Amino acid sequence: VKKRGAKAVLFHGPMERDEAARTGLETRSYSYYPMDDFLKECNGDRVQAGALRLKRMLADAGVSGGKLALYGLSDIGTAYPLYRTLERIAPELALDGNKTDILSLAMATKDAAEIDRIRKMGRITTSVVAKTADFLTHQRVKDDTLIGLDGKPVTVAKVKSLINLWLAEAGVENPEGCIFAIGRDAGVPHSTGIPEDALRLGQTIVFDIYPCEGGGGYFYDFTRTWCLGYAPDEVKKLYDQVYQVYHEVTGKLQANQPFSVAQRNTCELFEAMGHKTILNTPTTEEGYVHSIGHGLGLKIHEVPFSRLAATEEDKLLPGSVFTMEPGLYYPERGMGVRLEDSYWVNPSGKIEKLVDYPLELVLEMK
Amino acid sequence: VKKRGAKAVLFHGPMERDEAARTGLETRSYSYYPMDDFLKECNGDRVQAGALRLKRMLADAGVSGGKLALYGLSDIGTAYPLYRTLERIAPELALDGNKTDILSLAMATKDAAEIDRIRKMGRITTSVVAKTADFLTHQRVKDDTLIGLDGKPVTVAKVKSLINLWLAEAGVENPEGCIFAIGRDAGVPHSTGIPEDALRLGQTIVFDIYPCEGGGGYFYDFTRTWCLGYAPDEVKKLYDQVYQVYHEVTGKLQANQPFSVAQRNTCELFEAMGHKTILNTPTTEEGYVHSIGHGLGLKIHEVPFSRLAATEEDKLLPGSVFTMEPGLYYPERGMGVRLEDSYWVNPSGKIEKLVDYPLELVLEMK
Repeated sequence: VKKRGAKAVLFHGPMERDEAARTGLETRSYSYYPMDDFLKECNGDRVQAGALRLKRMLADAGVSGGKLALYGLSDIGTAYPLYRTLERIAPELALDGNKTDILSLAMATKDAAEIDRIRKMGRITTSVVAKTADFLTHQRVKDDTLIGLDGKPVTVAKVKSLINLWLAEAGVENPEGCIFAIGRDAGVPHSTGIPEDALRLGQTIVFDIYPCEGGGGYFYDFTRTWCLGYAPDEVKKLYDQVYQVYHEVTGKLQANQPFSVAQRNTCELFEAMGHKTILNTPTTEEGYVHSIGHGLGLKIHEVPFSRLAATEEDKLLPGSVFTMEPGLYYPERGMGVRLEDSYWVNPSGKIEKLVDYPLELVLEMK
Repeated sequence: VKKRGAKAVLFHGPMERDEAARTGLETRSYSYYPMDDFLKECNGDRVQAGALRLKRMLADAGVSGGKLALYGLSDIGTAYPLYRTLERIAPELALDGNKTDILSLAMATKDAAEIDRIRKMGRITTSVVAKTADFLTHQRVKDDTLIGLDGKPVTVAKVKSLINLWLAEAGVENPEGCIFAIGRDAGVPHSTGIPEDALRLGQTIVFDIYPCEGGGGYFYDFTRTWCLGYAPDEVKKLYDQVYQVYHEVTGKLQANQPFSVAQRNTCELFEAMGHKTILNTPTTEEGYVHSIGHGLGLKIHEVPFSRLAATEEDKLLPGSVFTMEPGLYYPERGMGVRLEDSYWVNPSGKIEKLVDYPLELVLEMK
């Protein structure tokens, strides 16, 4: 609980007292508010009791009236009736005040130390991508299918388990999993890949990886599209178009502009190439069907967003960290291409890629 | 959106259409409700627009009045004003109806296939515990401190990184981390361990591990307390008391009883031994300071809970899966002991441990 002009008070479970103390905030244990007492006071009504308890805790932190903003992840089924009841029993509190999420705003720009950490995550991420490429290109091939040492086809599940292993070896975490999708599945932007799919030459593989620091912390976000051995001409053409738009739109990025400008540019460039996009065909499932990028930091998706329905928070400010990830998807033609790197706006307003990694479609088999 | 007596409709982002289709539910893409249109209708008010959009989606799913219960994790700062506004613009909907979380109720009891999966997670968990014990007991010792191959003290951080590696090798995930705490820190129930702490002989180590299936799924939960090499007499005494209470309380468990009975029994037994507990000293930070256990499944903590302020959901029913984890904590004396296994109530009402693992305090150095 943070009152304007006062020190924040951290309420915590009795078992978390050391972790709470380590934050340096003022702390107060829930054990001073035994739920049983409040249940008695409210004739066993758990929601009433919870709201009354919350009212007391707020009062003890000096908050007994005025606007109150809420933050954080909650189970909405429990939290909604609780806060609704708090508003009823404490009408002097107004809870609807936070249309803007100030924590997101606070996280929107990063300082030098944060950039270092994100870049370090980027180096680890790309090193795992390199290990993956190395593993894939060293497999045996039979009838265009990759065959492992056990004589069986190499599957998406096998590659993902190796990726997880390498990430763990590097001491980082992979709380959101990764996308490793081949063929038709690569043509569906957020399909994470079908575990039993075997890896075959000449098919598009979309590999999107977004791990975070061990113990929780900063994320990185990165995508490459590969064809093992060779690429069919129609895939090469698609790849070249995405590659061209990627560089053209990224080259035009400017500090302090709305990120939606990049989204509009991307749509217009792809449409000029003959692809459908969500700019003029909002329900399309082919062509360019998502946003050009999103802010990146302690959350994998944070402000700024490149949505067309832009908000004030969606500007590229000095210190913004964000992804650029154009893509084209044709699931019925069994192919999809996406390229993604993470960027930041440096203090002098220049747009910089955080970590370099080759942009190549075809991985030659060794 | 699930209307009573009707099929559920899954609303989804356009990019997740394949994952949505795989659920077998009726699906409808958000792309049919472009946010820009609602923003225009609401003069750019994002909360109003979101609520109006939700109202339309509910109406399209056949819900335009009556009681509506909410479920799932949400950012409360965004969700609270949204649902509050929905209630205002759709007064025919009543949103406060879900004092009971029916998803938790649905998850409260497990069938045979679920028990198999949880038990399999238990086997993997205990195999990693065995590897950890094996690693620890094979280190060199100098001045009572474990020394690694690099000639440096073996730290909590080192052991945790190995645990994560072994879990990844077994194909499971560790989204919540684990507790590996030594000495004073072992005496603080939920301290996760100080990374730079060196491992020393004769100190209590609390090792609490709770991984889940790869890709998300069922959890297991398990704790042992170890002393490497030898145990001081006062630790042995504490361990024996926890061990005795563990078996006595577990032996008295009965199907269809409130889980709070076990919590009360535990408190009374520990108090008879001269320890403070939260039954009669709610704010104590020494002695027995937490609950005897909690339900376990797709979430690491789910119904039934053993809280004294028990609810209807907190009964041990056939199919309930739960932990038993008595502990005693004396941080100022540099020690803590907790023992934990996961149990279930089988269909005939018998209480069974899911996976056996030795209960021994002292790990002899090899």
